[in-house]
Amino acid sequence: MLVGDRIRLSDVARAAGVSLATASKALNGSGRMTAETRERVRQAAEAMGFRPNAMARALSSQRSFTVGLLTNDGYGRFSMPVMAGVAEALVDQGVSVFMCGIEDDAALGRLHVEAMLDKQVDGIICSGKRIDRRLPVDLSDLPVPVVYVFTDAPEGAVSLVSDDAQGAREAAEWLAGLGRRRLAHVTGPASFASARERARVFREVTGPDSTVLHGAWSEAWGHEAVARLWDGSAPPPDGLFCGNDQIARGAVDALRERGVAVPGDVSVVGFDNWEIVAAATRPPLTSIDMNLKDLGREAGRLMLALSEGRAVEPGVRRQPCRLVVRQSCGGGSAR
Amino acid sequence: MLVGDRIRLSDVARAAGVSLATASKALNGSGRMTAETRERVRQAAEAMGFRPNAMARALSSQRSFTVGLLTNDGYGRFSMPVMAGVAEALVDQGVSVFMCGIEDDAALGRLHVEAMLDKQVDGIICSGKRIDRRLPVDLSDLPVPVVYVFTDAPEGAVSLVSDDAQGAREAAEWLAGLGRRRLAHVTGPASFASARERARVFREVTGPDSTVLHGAWSEAWGHEAVARLWDGSAPPPDGLFCGNDQIARGAVDALRERGVAVPGDVSVVGFDNWEIVAAATRPPLTSIDMNLKDLGREAGRLMLALSEGRAVEPGVRRQPCRLVVRQSCGGGSAR
Repeated sequence: MLVGDRIRLSDVARAAGVSLATASKALNGSGRMTAETRERVRQAAEAMGFRPNAMARALSSQRSFTVGLLTNDGYGRFSMPVMAGVAEALVDQGVSVFMCGIEDDAALGRLHVEAMLDKQVDGIICSGKRIDRRLPVDLSDLPVPVVYVFTDAPEGAVSLVSDDAQGAREAAEWLAGLGRRRLAHVTGPASFASARERARVFREVTGPDSTVLHGAWSEAWGHEAVARLWDGSAPPPDGLFCGNDQIARGAVDALRERGVAVPGDVSVVGFDNWEIVAAATRPPLTSIDMNLKDLGREAGRLMLALSEGRAVEPGVRRQPCRLVVRQSCGGGSAR
Repeated sequence: MLVGDRIRLSDVARAAGVSLATASKALNGSGRMTAETRERVRQAAEAMGFRPNAMARALSSQRSFTVGLLTNDGYGRFSMPVMAGVAEALVDQGVSVFMCGIEDDAALGRLHVEAMLDKQVDGIICSGKRIDRRLPVDLSDLPVPVVYVFTDAPEGAVSLVSDDAQGAREAAEWLAGLGRRRLAHVTGPASFASARERARVFREVTGPDSTVLHGAWSEAWGHEAVARLWDGSAPPPDGLFCGNDQIARGAVDALRERGVAVPGDVSVVGFDNWEIVAAATRPPLTSIDMNLKDLGREAGRLMLALSEGRAVEPGVRRQPCRLVVRQSCGGGSAR
């Protein structure tokens, strides 16, 4: 092997004091930069023995400045903010993110992963619509690094999910901090790990006997749950923590129609902070935001490290959620 | 130039009776197919004088079996269904669709278009979030074909939009067909070409003096418009055509709170058929669906034709919308 082969483009970039993308473009004769910058990179490459053939390899296969984002979220609810975050983390490095949708179809998945590899992406970010299901593709033996975001990941992979436990704790403690004492949690199906985890933490905060109702992730379920809670013999709750914003919206509508004041009589917190729902609810919903864009941003940073050959600890990283306060809770606009 | 250079991969595919993707993979030694098919393609290539170097060119630059989808719709409301349609049209040809988001930033747009060209996509589909605005990139001199979907396109381009006039006509005529005589149109800002066009056709159907109210694309505007229409001195409408489903939802909620029955007293039609809103409205909304997935599918077909060198007529293609009947209108479940 020639000496020049061991010199990496990143070494040249560092020596010339420019980003990898700029170094690549300078040597490639493409991109926008001053003639001076281009010359500086060229001189650094020459001085370090970074040879044209090694350079060609660097440009054509070592780094392609493209990252693939694979998703089975056909609606875009989760994958669009993740993509925005990934793109934000990588754009300064001159890296483009290409998203490719697979439905829950293994053959389709293989086709698209092969296409990404043909295009010599620097890595693949794999993203889903729930954290306890895997995409129907095996990414374990790829020649490029893989980062998993908001999806189940195989043992030993680098993965990122939002911290359901911490998010649920924020919500329950916020309601308790407002002086609410009869709290209930109305959430989605217990078949979702996120629903189970949030319910577990809710009971940790509010007591083992507090009310948890599982149903669909829908407005209709929010309506129905309010009917059950308010038509029963027990005193109705004075605080509701809902598993998503649609359930919360249904609950708030149902309460208004019963003449129960929100936030006067009952404080309500949703989950997801889905603007289109949370902001249109009357009153607008306090909600837990999973910070999906931050998740994407961190995934982009990890991918960058991996594609530059830096070491990244494997395992599941849980990123914090944040409480977004609107009027449905009362009791202060921030903390 | 050698004779073999003039033989195209599509000629070989046709002679062997296989798709382009299969022909490519057969000659490339990749992909899944029977040994017999692979041999048939090879023999066809040999018989026609399709030479390895021409083949290599075909594989490496003539067709890459990837199409880029450029969008500035960061929410995914419009671009996700378009992408699903494009993918559906192309997957049988072994073509993958890679979506890349640009915000309204020309430098970012250039970077990502360059990345797509570096990856030798067979073509670029350019998609937006409204039909009267252009993405901040100039795609007029690219070495690959471009198809525009749901965005403004330059003169002479191949473009697809949904037919606002036909959609608005369907809505207004449906309401009239139910016997509604006092129709009003509550829609978005007049700065949107779609809002103006739908309003124009609404008046064509209902008369030049019929009520058209412009406001925001929001539930809050639906509430406010109902207050204006019902608190005025004129007799209130018995049919509402709303410019999107959010306005319609706000209007339906406001009517319920006034004790006005939907569809008993007033029939309501929305626009967009955005499931998450239309299906959750009480009663669920009849709405105009822009068939964005069909738009994507047609864009995929046009792209395929262009990338295979077939002739495609330039100009704007308007694809029909369709009325989706739910309970907010009354008077029949389909037609």
